[in-house]
Amino acid sequence: MPLFKKVLYPTDFSELSNIAKNYVMKLKEANTQEVIILHVIHPLEFSLPQFDDPFALDVATIYANIPEIEKEVLKRHEEILNIVAEEFKNQGFSVKKVMTIGDPKEEIVRIADEEKVNVIVIGYHGKGLLERILEMGSTAKTVIKKAKCPVLVIKKEV
Amino acid sequence: MPLFKKVLYPTDFSELSNIAKNYVMKLKEANTQEVIILHVIHPLEFSLPQFDDPFALDVATIYANIPEIEKEVLKRHEEILNIVAEEFKNQGFSVKKVMTIGDPKEEIVRIADEEKVNVIVIGYHGKGLLERILEMGSTAKTVIKKAKCPVLVIKKEV
Repeated sequence: MPLFKKVLYPTDFSELSNIAKNYVMKLKEANTQEVIILHVIHPLEFSLPQFDDPFALDVATIYANIPEIEKEVLKRHEEILNIVAEEFKNQGFSVKKVMTIGDPKEEIVRIADEEKVNVIVIGYHGKGLLERILEMGSTAKTVIKKAKCPVLVIKKEV
Repeated sequence: MPLFKKVLYPTDFSELSNIAKNYVMKLKEANTQEVIILHVIHPLEFSLPQFDDPFALDVATIYANIPEIEKEVLKRHEEILNIVAEEFKNQGFSVKKVMTIGDPKEEIVRIADEEKVNVIVIGYHGKGLLERILEMGSTAKTVIKKAKCPVLVIKKEV
């Protein structure tokens, strides 16, 4: 069983995700071949009054049902995801982009399972109060708790 | 900067530590060369009425000041640590054994810093109630929070 062959790299495009990205790039030396880049969009970022359960929707359905101005936002997410994917490709990784709608922590655990990755690499800032307020901190905590595979926790440099 | 060259493997000799040990063994393929095996003993495991602050003592002082029967306990800790060290040596790792007295989570973070390790590998069981009761769960959580280096969290297989 390879330890780092297939890596799940969840990203919200934050500075913290960027620190984790730099680490994943270096995993080449530990024989990482494939990177699943996961970007999860929270459904409440969009106005979808006609749906009772926005968590049950996929990206295409949301795309078809939001106003033009929000389509632009969604497109922007996709564009940044493409840029990140290119960066990994340029380093010689095989890349799979996954964009889903849902609760980031649940989606990360679900996709890790589904894709049978060897490890999840996630950023974490253990800086007391901030961590409790900011989304990414609590996402990492829940992922560490719920994931079945190993989780490599990258700390924000201080 | 190598990612896994020097690894800190803290162990309380539990089943969970054992799962993490099996993972560290495999890190050979990711170019791990040196393993610091850390075993932290809680000072309250010994009867040391003549000292106000047992956390300030080292292993030798404790050894010199405990009854014969407790010396046997301490020796047993050392013996198990030696066995674990041998296992790593047999796999071709360079090994350093560290046995300290103190609070495990604080000691793990301190030794990681002092030894400038590339990563801490620690077991974690995210199994709800148990994790809140058992020591190792909360140790892992605090280590993840306070460590400056990356932490590789190995989940208990379910």
